[in-house]
Amino acid sequence: MSLARTLATDDFRSELFERGLLIPTTVDGLYGRNEVFEGIVAAVDALIGRLSAADGAEIMRFPPVMTRQGFEASGYFKNFPHLSGTIHCFCGDDRDHRRALECAPEQGGWTSAQVASDVVLTPASCYPVYPIVAARGPLPAEGWLVDSSSYCFRREPSLDPARMQMFRQREQVCFGTPERIRAFQSHWMQRALAMFEQMRLPAATDLANDPFFGRPGELMANGQRSQRLKFEILLPVSDPDRPSACGSFNYHVQHFATAYGIHDAAGEVAHTGCAGFGLERIALALLRHHGLDPQDWPAAVRGVLWPAS
Amino acid sequence: MSLARTLATDDFRSELFERGLLIPTTVDGLYGRNEVFEGIVAAVDALIGRLSAADGAEIMRFPPVMTRQGFEASGYFKNFPHLSGTIHCFCGDDRDHRRALECAPEQGGWTSAQVASDVVLTPASCYPVYPIVAARGPLPAEGWLVDSSSYCFRREPSLDPARMQMFRQREQVCFGTPERIRAFQSHWMQRALAMFEQMRLPAATDLANDPFFGRPGELMANGQRSQRLKFEILLPVSDPDRPSACGSFNYHVQHFATAYGIHDAAGEVAHTGCAGFGLERIALALLRHHGLDPQDWPAAVRGVLWPAS
Repeated sequence: MSLARTLATDDFRSELFERGLLIPTTVDGLYGRNEVFEGIVAAVDALIGRLSAADGAEIMRFPPVMTRQGFEASGYFKNFPHLSGTIHCFCGDDRDHRRALECAPEQGGWTSAQVASDVVLTPASCYPVYPIVAARGPLPAEGWLVDSSSYCFRREPSLDPARMQMFRQREQVCFGTPERIRAFQSHWMQRALAMFEQMRLPAATDLANDPFFGRPGELMANGQRSQRLKFEILLPVSDPDRPSACGSFNYHVQHFATAYGIHDAAGEVAHTGCAGFGLERIALALLRHHGLDPQDWPAAVRGVLWPAS
Repeated sequence: MSLARTLATDDFRSELFERGLLIPTTVDGLYGRNEVFEGIVAAVDALIGRLSAADGAEIMRFPPVMTRQGFEASGYFKNFPHLSGTIHCFCGDDRDHRRALECAPEQGGWTSAQVASDVVLTPASCYPVYPIVAARGPLPAEGWLVDSSSYCFRREPSLDPARMQMFRQREQVCFGTPERIRAFQSHWMQRALAMFEQMRLPAATDLANDPFFGRPGELMANGQRSQRLKFEILLPVSDPDRPSACGSFNYHVQHFATAYGIHDAAGEVAHTGCAGFGLERIALALLRHHGLDPQDWPAAVRGVLWPAS
């Protein structure tokens, strides 16, 4: 990264802090949010809701924690070990507690007695959906559609405000035939591009090759590209030369349905896809492009985000 | 607990699942939420917002994770080891990763290589506030007021839907003189009682003695009671005979200000207090008392929660 790029990223971050939009902590990528920032996130979230209101999706909202069982089935730790966050708890008695409190930092300190629990942090808001849909038995003949949202965790401390350790994702998750998933994927791509145009954000699409099915990557990545399984919509946020993925439109083929045991009405392994948006990143893109005070944004952009006011 | 009570709790839980208001997972106390449930939570949250709109509080919203440094300063693990959740990550190389994946379950399985990170789950939504206020230097002469909200984690798996492992808390956090905190505490008690009356919920107050400053408890608990530091508002939720704390109104004296180094304008250690509401518990109390379909709730209750509609 060139010095100019670094400075641009640092300037944007400092401005966000100075305005109080993000509130720094002592950990990079972990921030509080003020009322203005939350108002933008809520407006973007509501806009996505209006776009999809007629789809008849089942609304599911999740806390930022999911079952370890569901996480294991996804293969996430196998593919993204460094991004995973597991939750550990204390199961000892009073004596163990005293020992933990007295444990020297170089021996692990007070966390030395923590043991892995049956819950983990959610890496993407669609992950808790699969075990729930699987547990209901075969899909209806026409398939199924879920609208999910949660805070998500990815362990990648960064000075780039667009790369947070905790951020919100709003996703649509589609279950059904390959035809349905392909149509869903392409419909959401078009919707998202139109949405970013309405927000006057310079969106670009990219056929992504990051290996979301598996890490031992090249072959799979090439397969993904040629099969057009993963598209992203990129917006310049912190660094004009390195746009950030703000939307992701994926056809999983039978990867998740096999992992969780999701079957169609005929008993065949189903196909799945998802269309997800990073709410903080879109809020940051708006702030970057239209200025740090939403009151000063173009009337057309404000009208799209706050239609009633 | 008598059999009758257990049955009542189980029935309520089953009804919530059947209606889809809460979506079960394989972990007790961890649920998805449907649109209706989220609508109730949002309405309660907005009602608290209207009650406090004129107070001039600084709005802070947080992800459900806070810095380990801030968590350690609070003394939470010392007082509530079994409720704490620490976040552990993988810091190894490819070889460590392969070894973790191959590790036998009885040796800790794939989580065996996880190490404690610099972030932990937030136990109460006011905890991330203190280090932020401390970092700004001395308080203004009149003190300060923050309105905080986040998902919180407490490790207490339970079949009682009112005892979740992840739930949302909306809190007001007050900084200033003992007089200001006492007035704040009593003002919020009155406000909360009036709010529950408007919602036609049978609220009772209790002078609480759970040792929120420290575990080695009796003496401190007695001190708390006689100093009237901690009040709770209780509502019957799952078990009519064992009401749940839905609001908590606390005067911390100088406990948190000492722990975090928060000083008043004259350089003295400040006093703090908080007034917090458990949003899921209030939503559950409404469902318990007025029925599982908000459309059928008394018009007066609907009018308080959804004044515009």
